[in-house]
Amino acid sequence: MTVKQTDGVKIVTIGGGSSYTPELMEGLINRYDQVPVREIWLVDIEEGKEKLEIVGEMARRMWNASGHDVQVHLTLDRREALKDADFVTTQFRVGLLAARIKDERIPLSYGMAGQETNGAGGIFKALRTIPVILDIVEDMKELCPDAWLVNFTNPSGMVTEAVMKYGHWDKVAGLCNVPVIAMMSEPEAIGKTPEDLTYRFAGLNHFHWHRVWDETGREVTRDLIEAFDRLGRTPGTPANIFDVPFYREQLDLMDMIPCGYHRYYYRQQEMLEHMLEEAQSQAGTRAEQVKQTEDELFELYKDPNLDHKPEQLARRGGAHYSDAACETIASLYADKNTHIVLTTRNNGAIPDLPEDVAVEVSTLVGKDGPKVIPFGALPAGERGLLQVMKAMEQCVEEAAVTGNVGALLEAFTLNPLITAGETARQVMNELLVAHERYLPQFAPVIEQLKQDGVTVKDERVRRLMEEGQ
Amino acid sequence: MTVKQTDGVKIVTIGGGSSYTPELMEGLINRYDQVPVREIWLVDIEEGKEKLEIVGEMARRMWNASGHDVQVHLTLDRREALKDADFVTTQFRVGLLAARIKDERIPLSYGMAGQETNGAGGIFKALRTIPVILDIVEDMKELCPDAWLVNFTNPSGMVTEAVMKYGHWDKVAGLCNVPVIAMMSEPEAIGKTPEDLTYRFAGLNHFHWHRVWDETGREVTRDLIEAFDRLGRTPGTPANIFDVPFYREQLDLMDMIPCGYHRYYYRQQEMLEHMLEEAQSQAGTRAEQVKQTEDELFELYKDPNLDHKPEQLARRGGAHYSDAACETIASLYADKNTHIVLTTRNNGAIPDLPEDVAVEVSTLVGKDGPKVIPFGALPAGERGLLQVMKAMEQCVEEAAVTGNVGALLEAFTLNPLITAGETARQVMNELLVAHERYLPQFAPVIEQLKQDGVTVKDERVRRLMEEGQ
Amino acid sequence: MTVKQTDGVKIVTIGGGSSYTPELMEGLINRYDQVPVREIWLVDIEEGKEKLEIVGEMARRMWNASGHDVQVHLTLDRREALKDADFVTTQFRVGLLAARIKDERIPLSYGMAGQETNGAGGIFKALRTIPVILDIVEDMKELCPDAWLVNFTNPSGMVTEAVMKYGHWDKVAGLCNVPVIAMMSEPEAIGKTPEDLTYRFAGLNHFHWHRVWDETGREVTRDLIEAFDRLGRTPGTPANIFDVPFYREQLDLMDMIPCGYHRYYYRQQEMLEHMLEEAQSQAGTRAEQVKQTEDELFELYKDPNLDHKPEQLARRGGAHYSDAACETIASLYADKNTHIVLTTRNNGAIPDLPEDVAVEVSTLVGKDGPKVIPFGALPAGERGLLQVMKAMEQCVEEAAVTGNVGALLEAFTLNPLITAGETARQVMNELLVAHERYLPQFAPVIEQLKQDGVTVKDERVRRLMEEGQ
Amino acid sequence: MTVKQTDGVKIVTIGGGSSYTPELMEGLINRYDQVPVREIWLVDIEEGKEKLEIVGEMARRMWNASGHDVQVHLTLDRREALKDADFVTTQFRVGLLAARIKDERIPLSYGMAGQETNGAGGIFKALRTIPVILDIVEDMKELCPDAWLVNFTNPSGMVTEAVMKYGHWDKVAGLCNVPVIAMMSEPEAIGKTPEDLTYRFAGLNHFHWHRVWDETGREVTRDLIEAFDRLGRTPGTPANIFDVPFYREQLDLMDMIPCGYHRYYYRQQEMLEHMLEEAQSQAGTRAEQVKQTEDELFELYKDPNLDHKPEQLARRGGAHYSDAACETIASLYADKNTHIVLTTRNNGAIPDLPEDVAVEVSTLVGKDGPKVIPFGALPAGERGLLQVMKAMEQCVEEAAVTGNVGALLEAFTLNPLITAGETARQVMNELLVAHERYLPQFAPVIEQLKQDGVTVKDERVRRLMEEGQ
Repeated sequence: MTVKQTDGVKIVTIGGGSSYTPELMEGLINRYDQVPVREIWLVDIEEGKEKLEIVGEMARRMWNASGHDVQVHLTLDRREALKDADFVTTQFRVGLLAARIKDERIPLSYGMAGQETNGAGGIFKALRTIPVILDIVEDMKELCPDAWLVNFTNPSGMVTEAVMKYGHWDKVAGLCNVPVIAMMSEPEAIGKTPEDLTYRFAGLNHFHWHRVWDETGREVTRDLIEAFDRLGRTPGTPANIFDVPFYREQLDLMDMIPCGYHRYYYRQQEMLEHMLEEAQSQAGTRAEQVKQTEDELFELYKDPNLDHKPEQLARRGGAHYSDAACETIASLYADKNTHIVLTTRNNGAIPDLPEDVAVEVSTLVGKDGPKVIPFGALPAGERGLLQVMKAMEQCVEEAAVTGNVGALLEAFTLNPLITAGETARQVMNELLVAHERYLPQFAPVIEQLKQDGVTVKDERVRRLMEEGQ
Repeated sequence: MTVKQTDGVKIVTIGGGSSYTPELMEGLINRYDQVPVREIWLVDIEEGKEKLEIVGEMARRMWNASGHDVQVHLTLDRREALKDADFVTTQFRVGLLAARIKDERIPLSYGMAGQETNGAGGIFKALRTIPVILDIVEDMKELCPDAWLVNFTNPSGMVTEAVMKYGHWDKVAGLCNVPVIAMMSEPEAIGKTPEDLTYRFAGLNHFHWHRVWDETGREVTRDLIEAFDRLGRTPGTPANIFDVPFYREQLDLMDMIPCGYHRYYYRQQEMLEHMLEEAQSQAGTRAEQVKQTEDELFELYKDPNLDHKPEQLARRGGAHYSDAACETIASLYADKNTHIVLTTRNNGAIPDLPEDVAVEVSTLVGKDGPKVIPFGALPAGERGLLQVMKAMEQCVEEAAVTGNVGALLEAFTLNPLITAGETARQVMNELLVAHERYLPQFAPVIEQLKQDGVTVKDERVRRLMEEGQ
Repeated sequence: MTVKQTDGVKIVTIGGGSSYTPELMEGLINRYDQVPVREIWLVDIEEGKEKLEIVGEMARRMWNASGHDVQVHLTLDRREALKDADFVTTQFRVGLLAARIKDERIPLSYGMAGQETNGAGGIFKALRTIPVILDIVEDMKELCPDAWLVNFTNPSGMVTEAVMKYGHWDKVAGLCNVPVIAMMSEPEAIGKTPEDLTYRFAGLNHFHWHRVWDETGREVTRDLIEAFDRLGRTPGTPANIFDVPFYREQLDLMDMIPCGYHRYYYRQQEMLEHMLEEAQSQAGTRAEQVKQTEDELFELYKDPNLDHKPEQLARRGGAHYSDAACETIASLYADKNTHIVLTTRNNGAIPDLPEDVAVEVSTLVGKDGPKVIPFGALPAGERGLLQVMKAMEQCVEEAAVTGNVGALLEAFTLNPLITAGETARQVMNELLVAHERYLPQFAPVIEQLKQDGVTVKDERVRRLMEEGQ
Repeated sequence: MTVKQTDGVKIVTIGGGSSYTPELMEGLINRYDQVPVREIWLVDIEEGKEKLEIVGEMARRMWNASGHDVQVHLTLDRREALKDADFVTTQFRVGLLAARIKDERIPLSYGMAGQETNGAGGIFKALRTIPVILDIVEDMKELCPDAWLVNFTNPSGMVTEAVMKYGHWDKVAGLCNVPVIAMMSEPEAIGKTPEDLTYRFAGLNHFHWHRVWDETGREVTRDLIEAFDRLGRTPGTPANIFDVPFYREQLDLMDMIPCGYHRYYYRQQEMLEHMLEEAQSQAGTRAEQVKQTEDELFELYKDPNLDHKPEQLARRGGAHYSDAACETIASLYADKNTHIVLTTRNNGAIPDLPEDVAVEVSTLVGKDGPKVIPFGALPAGERGLLQVMKAMEQCVEEAAVTGNVGALLEAFTLNPLITAGETARQVMNELLVAHERYLPQFAPVIEQLKQDGVTVKDERVRRLMEEGQ
């Protein structure tokens, strides 16, 4: 980091109208002594203008209440915002929550896993997001070539890898709150505090494992596994994931703790059954539940007297996300050498993957960027899972950049949550058609599908499409 | 190979009572000028004694008819046979066809793929076979330390890798007829003969891809893909595999031809549907069909006038298997440098896998053993599939050697044909109980399962078990 | 290649005033039916203006004589030339031949190998060249983002790798005439013609090995080794390399033919002795001999009647260089799928090196660029040599980009031709001071060295420096 | 470890007549509460019988003084000793100190580095030792298949790798005192104690680097580098290594501390000059100095009143060697999970080398053997050095097993301390002839050399040979 320290830091947030923004503001306010922010630019698109104004006003009130002299700019002009930025954070959702509903409902309507970052849904979220982030990177090359890109747009792993591989942009860190939640929630199970324990993570975004040591250097991974077994639940699993237990024999063999999302793979059957139940319930899929929470949050943000992050935000599911982002910014800026779990270049941290791919691992973050903490070779089983997921991610990224249907079929074949064959192909076709507006790279393919009469089976999705979403 | 060439070659066949033996004899008779066989020992176990005698007499008649002075010994004493052997071939089936029926029917009874070398069935075949082959290797270390082991017992890849990794025995070559069938059946589709084309294979047993060049050095892989598309079928696919087409977009991207068994992965849904149909049909599962053919073959072999391989054997499914074995023996012995597709040590042929694992690749076989022909890096999608399968194989091998349930659950999780969760666990448990006799390494686990009341659901399998099989 | 084929091809040659240019022109004229050239821009710098005009006029005469309507532009304005180029070739020499004389004489004055592309001299040639090529690439990103860069500026391997790694430019092919010379000169030794044999190369620039097969597919590498042994010389070794024989026992073990330059490593002692003798002789070092030849060539080029490449050019040492370049251009443009040995991305061709480094290997060149032909794992000894050279190259590239003395010392330590210690450090210091003008990245270091009183010991080099070279 | 804990531990020491044995005894006496030794077998060969008796009596006195009831057996019958051993330690020197004198003097007589474990000397020590250790392993397979082999015979890395690779024996740990010396001597330089700091090592035997952290987890590698710079010496360097400083710029770039022996590579010139001086001095080469010390030690050991390790042993150069061995035995036996730096299987600890090669790294040693602590990717320069040294080791091991001169020439070419060419070949030839008695695998080659008139130039070595050594 060679920020010109004289005149304060300029931070730009793409997707600034997100309900997460107040958390981000709080994180920056709390670290103002480490990162002297001069100006914040919240950027959004036309459709998000109203939300941007609500959350932007909220942000201004928060900074005013903090007593720091920081300008909060709201804009729909991304290029204006990026000019001379020191940090760019990305938290946008291409297609908004309506797109997430499609990602969930279309696979589920065929009895397949429908989920935001796993299975067919995660693949399509990447297809929509990667072209946009690559555009942002092109702007950054021109307008703020020394800035760091702190990405917490999901699927964070694929998006970050695409930035490095196709955008040729190295100053990027991908963030996720799943490791933070584990590190904060697990220690209690063995009578410890987060400060007592040392964590080491390795894997991919939403697909990592960790090992843990206590303050004397003794490994306590096995103690945690046993404690979770006794408790009958896994405290570190994010609230939004159904907590079916892992098989103890597998945990004993791997001698690591899988992340919450790993249930989709180690207990595929039960997770699918749960998703199908949820979709048919009153509450609806996760996207539909989140939409409800968001609407409530924006009602709160409208309150002209509210000048601090409301408690309800924590329930949103993305708790600690922005906190991790702010800590990353502070560590980069103030050379703190903090342990942060990030998606970054492998560099041998996981010897089972090439050095130049993106992995989510424990790093020490300082002014020269994150330095990976080596994790070592994985057990055979986990190595295989990791390698097939990385290959799947690369096929998705290729499809996102080229619009090649073969690459997309490859990703569908590789993805453990998808059963390759005609039903999967139908799911793929419906998702292509449903997301047409955000998949210009697939335009000729989608045109052909529509001519072939492909239509979406799920009613709620059809309704969204009729509404122009 | 440092065979003492003065006094002829001694060949030992473990599982000598197999219906394949006449093909093996034919192959050796045809290559007698290259490999001067002195004596052949056909070894089998008590249960196979009757078949051994039938097929042994048949073998003697074949050699007599050939005019060569070769002694054919029949024995149940493996150690007596192995003494000073030059070549040991293995073609045994632990648990006979009854075990295969269990491998197929138990998974299918829960709607999962039931197949001899893929899915849960293939995993259990490996669990039964690996301890036996390792015993054979221990005997070989003592009794014939210079011999080559030519394995065509399935699952050939895992069995061969276990010999190298756990048996520390390097002089082993794993064989399969799938590449041979492809090389003999495909060329016609583009108006060529097998002699015109050069093939290069890489992958794992029943999980490889190939590329093809014509006599001018021009690559014709794409021509073959197009020809198959026009034909509406894949000529190189073994007769026993349902010929659902691969998706053309995937073939175009990978620019290779997958093997017939790859359908289980690229078209998982359709292959499963086909297996379920077949199991419910009159003909029954593959094992049940094969049993019928075998009975017919042994009836033929009893004919004291039959002194050559009968035509019907070709229909058995394993056509060319023994031929490939004999060509391997001849190439090792006579330093022929023939192109043979074998399971052998990777040695960089596929840079996406470590050098010391077993792969099935094109090799040149001469007196120093097979030398791999480098294939180069695979496309991302195929690399991922290959890596997850290799990891699965390694988990299976570990489970076979240690009896560790965690390793077995890992293999179930990794296997693309198995949906991880309680149903899969039930399938695993039933297979453990059904194969109890051949899984001594899992004895305590199986004991516990029986105490917990695990019983087999499929009626035909239950009946086999009641019959003591 | 997506050249707009309507209006002909634009080719730009950086270092257009080189004595090689007529060969390049000849190659393009001979392939005009494959590559319809519209205009050629020969670019040089102020110091090269006179030569540019001489050779430019010569080029024009050659094209006129060919009867094709091609415009030859001469310019000192690189950016004007690059605009909308289809192919950019680079053949410049930063610091001209005077720099090469320094690269040779300074190490030799301390009894160390002094050579253009090996040892300390090769390192410094890279330090001077890499910043310039990276500047060119930045211009290309802006002015001709679809063009291919065909580099034959030495050290071709490091320069090409720097373009890929630091320039983030993938459409680059590095060229060298050493493989071409081998393929043209060796076959005769076993009574064959170049057309009869198939060659496969792998390694790094000036550091590769090859294997050879005859028209029946039989490997003849060993036949060639034996023939060279009988002949007492290696026909494929470039004329400028002292032909001390390799040790037969090493060749027999590696079963490959090393390139001519490999003598500097396998017979380090004798090569050094020869270089020291040569430097003390009348003819002087290679650079001094080349300078003489070049002066003679330019005298010839001045002849207004000369309109074809003169015979004398072949003796220049770089024979076939431009021919390989033209064939590469033709293969890229006309999708010829020709076998060309190029420096390109490894992609698993040599599994002993990471996939993303630059290697010099056999490729098939078509419209999508070069596709590597897998070579397979090297024997242990050659693998080690290759890996340490690749590491050395990477340290040099890092030093070239950052001006870090530690990285330069690392390169000196790794280089097998340099004995690490104080004498090597003195050589390094003198080279830094002697090349000051072309090493702006080391400006502060050089400033300090001069203050510390570092001066060049070799008299001829001191004289060149006094003349302002 | 599945030692039958009822009846105490049996330890066998091959090379039991070594002057180190008292240190080994002391280490076992100090750890008797952790490792209940029942009997110790000191094994030696006929030539070592006298020393064996002297040191054996000394050992008995030490155990008597300790008050523990442990039998010390002295024998020349290795097989008798190995029967049912729990631990086998190896500390023998094939050819005794006379062989070491040859290893040092022959290269030095041609101006090349002559050293026990580096350069040509280290190569020949491996050639003599590997066949012997492989014989021991064959005995162990038969007589004590569950025992651990704790090797501290040099060159420890190659000897240990040969045991794993050619002996197919996994229960082996290679030991060296260099890391121990560093961990005990360095901390003081920054005002710390060994207990305060955490060390992590990675590399090969006598060729590793380390990083260090303080009690708060802060990395202090750079602090140590600076402290050594201020001190003008490196406290962790073994007493027998000339302490020329590393170049600070290289240390700053690599951000690691090289081991003492690394000076032979980073400061090759000065180390060679020092060795040449030493050889011409009164004291003579290291071997000659060591011989003097040993003679003095055996005089002490003869004292029937001496029943504890004498102080003078510490000066012998191998201080802490046996201590590390005893700690390894205790950790294996008592499952202590101690941090010990060992030569063991890489398993991804250093991702720049294959998983199955031997490396010297930080491990945690418990009942299941050593588990490597991942170190992560090395900087480019150190990666290259490491890879070329590993390749050299593998060529040496191959030569030791096969007697192939090509492999030996490859090792000479790869070794950075040897300049390939005729002088090196002469050094190789003289070493072959001088060590004839211990190199049966090279018998035909040596016979030819003698017929060709190869004789040793160095007078002292010639004298040793005339004496029959």
